[in-house]
Amino acid sequence: MAQFNFKNLKKIQPKLTLIGAGPGDPELITVKGITALAKAQAVLYDALVNPALLEFSPPDIPKIFVGKRKGEHSFTQNEINKLIVDLALTHGNVVRLKGGDSFVFGRGYEEIEYAEKNNILTEYIPGISSSISVPGLQGIPVTNRGTSESFWVITGTTSTGELSKDVGVAAQTTATVVILMGLSKLNEIVSLYKLNNKQDAAVAIIQNGSLPEEKIILGTIDTIEKIATEEKIGAPAIIVVGDVVKLHPDFQEKLSGRNSLLDFRS
Amino acid sequence: MAQFNFKNLKKIQPKLTLIGAGPGDPELITVKGITALAKAQAVLYDALVNPALLEFSPPDIPKIFVGKRKGEHSFTQNEINKLIVDLALTHGNVVRLKGGDSFVFGRGYEEIEYAEKNNILTEYIPGISSSISVPGLQGIPVTNRGTSESFWVITGTTSTGELSKDVGVAAQTTATVVILMGLSKLNEIVSLYKLNNKQDAAVAIIQNGSLPEEKIILGTIDTIEKIATEEKIGAPAIIVVGDVVKLHPDFQEKLSGRNSLLDFRS
Repeated sequence: MAQFNFKNLKKIQPKLTLIGAGPGDPELITVKGITALAKAQAVLYDALVNPALLEFSPPDIPKIFVGKRKGEHSFTQNEINKLIVDLALTHGNVVRLKGGDSFVFGRGYEEIEYAEKNNILTEYIPGISSSISVPGLQGIPVTNRGTSESFWVITGTTSTGELSKDVGVAAQTTATVVILMGLSKLNEIVSLYKLNNKQDAAVAIIQNGSLPEEKIILGTIDTIEKIATEEKIGAPAIIVVGDVVKLHPDFQEKLSGRNSLLDFRS
Repeated sequence: MAQFNFKNLKKIQPKLTLIGAGPGDPELITVKGITALAKAQAVLYDALVNPALLEFSPPDIPKIFVGKRKGEHSFTQNEINKLIVDLALTHGNVVRLKGGDSFVFGRGYEEIEYAEKNNILTEYIPGISSSISVPGLQGIPVTNRGTSESFWVITGTTSTGELSKDVGVAAQTTATVVILMGLSKLNEIVSLYKLNNKQDAAVAIIQNGSLPEEKIILGTIDTIEKIATEEKIGAPAIIVVGDVVKLHPDFQEKLSGRNSLLDFRS
């Protein structure tokens, strides 16, 4: 009789590991994140995750794209939750690789909650949030002594698909305001600032932040819509409003050049 | 005559590289950050940076602690700025290693500005901000569908040493409010929330987030001061106020246990 080899027994240990992949540049994942990715037994990844990161996970495991792409079937959150549990029970450690940080509008907490209700161990590994890093990489610090004592990060797309009402309150404050997933609501955002007589507030919109195809436009509440149309800015993009935007090296130049504040004032 | 060896000529290329070291756990630095640290020709590091990270910089370079420690001479910002320029001109690539992210109340932009005025090339490498990651590692997501559509990060210590006035406005909103460097102003923060009838707002204070000595207390605006005193919570600590705090697994238990909401209501 052959000796029984315990080493051949693979005990499945179901686990969900949420890893924030950062804003796009694959080197902006953390050391902890890339180390955990190498121990994945299945990976579910989103649209904003750089696919280059998948190479750091084992080659022979399921890697499933669960993000949204135009014209393709996209998974509902409920389907993703169930897939996580199924894969955890059959494969073990499921890595959920998300753009930015999993707890910044990433629906990460819903996945943690669902997994824990199914008695699956969970771990959260923080990621570089685009809300801070994308403006920063453009030379716009979200805070700066004498300029801004706080920053307020708001979703442009709530669960009902609408702009968060918090933007209307934020427009009344001196906080640096960072709006994620808000490009399609730019007109509404501009209106809220105009309601508060903030026509001259400085605005930056950064598309594909931290990636080689990164693009930025700079303007004011009065001019930014026209510039966004002219420059064909598209999603994914981050909107930053506040005095820190004026610290961008091109801000003064752009204002005095092609865009006169007075020309576009409503 | 001996042959002239160009390889022996080291041309100094002055540079300032700002690296966010993350909240404390050394593995929460980015891959880009640790790679850049290995290329440092001098390092200036702060009090909240984990010293374990210094081992990833070359052994034979100046590594200068410029943070604040009780009873010791601490560098002024002006002294740090000058030291950066001096070291960049004499040694080349100066890495400025800062806790969290350099642009979140880190005075990073002041260093960038000063270096650029002195014609020194600068680079910003984002870090994991404690504002998002420290609550997250405790199971408190800064945003969650149906709970919070935004988070507002505010300094507890402005340039004049005071609590930012933004806290008074934030207390009127439904945003998750994260206050950094605010522990010594806890009484003032609590008063601002009480002014807005938010006695029952959920509060977490997390000390030494992401480190083995991490400590958390949970309560409400009404109870948190008493608990902070009892539990001897000290700096560095992060204060989180908002409904997301109720998602912490121990929140309901702690409330129904030792701390009755009614007992401490003012």
